[in-house]
Amino acid sequence: MIKQGDKAAIEKIFSQEEVIAYAKSSNDNNPVHFDPDYAEKTPFAKPIVHGMLAASLFGGLLGSDLPGKGTIHLGQELKFIKPVMVGEKVLATIEVTHIREDKPVFTFDCILTKEDGSVAIQGTAVVIFRGEVFK
Amino acid sequence: MIKQGDKAAIEKIFSQEEVIAYAKSSNDNNPVHFDPDYAEKTPFAKPIVHGMLAASLFGGLLGSDLPGKGTIHLGQELKFIKPVMVGEKVLATIEVTHIREDKPVFTFDCILTKEDGSVAIQGTAVVIFRGEVFK
Repeated sequence: MIKQGDKAAIEKIFSQEEVIAYAKSSNDNNPVHFDPDYAEKTPFAKPIVHGMLAASLFGGLLGSDLPGKGTIHLGQELKFIKPVMVGEKVLATIEVTHIREDKPVFTFDCILTKEDGSVAIQGTAVVIFRGEVFK
Repeated sequence: MIKQGDKAAIEKIFSQEEVIAYAKSSNDNNPVHFDPDYAEKTPFAKPIVHGMLAASLFGGLLGSDLPGKGTIHLGQELKFIKPVMVGEKVLATIEVTHIREDKPVFTFDCILTKEDGSVAIQGTAVVIFRGEVFK
């Protein structure tokens, strides 16, 4: 039984290969994501992960872990606060903050932190859990 | 000069291979995204694209087209209204709805439509354009 305060978390290092695959798939071909020479001339200095790709970890936690299989993503809000570098280890955490009484609709706080503990992405997710249909 | 009402759009068909790559990268391994036998038993009947992957097209438009290179994603809100099927053609459109007077911060409406014209994803994006730094 899922209750308020329940958490799930995952660590991840996005590789340059993953970022390139995402750039192609999303057509987001900004060289700041994969060209070290270009990135060096920007304030980021090194290639950065697309914010939406870094935020994909929240969907992964929701769909695979909490609530898990049978989760349907209804809404997502994201604030991109700091860049995530390619090859940098980050920690994505989700926490149940609200459960509707009439149906299995859950609201989650979503936070992606860097190794120094600072927040890179902050947001909220709303999902409905249809575990009875999606077995 | 970007002005209110400016639009950009892109058509896309997400392949099963792209969806599998995204599932691995995000750790969102729900079989509804890649297992036809499993998907057949769900209300979706066929494999569906991760909502956040379909929404990646908005980031692609922002970063590659409008405003284009030099865009930094500050925030994104998304409502997932209808599923996007693997192999289905969708159209992502962004439109400038607000421009801050004091700095180049733009708000966009983001809409992903299906071939029948119905809306699959609706949202808003906020970006800052740093074209003077990111050349």
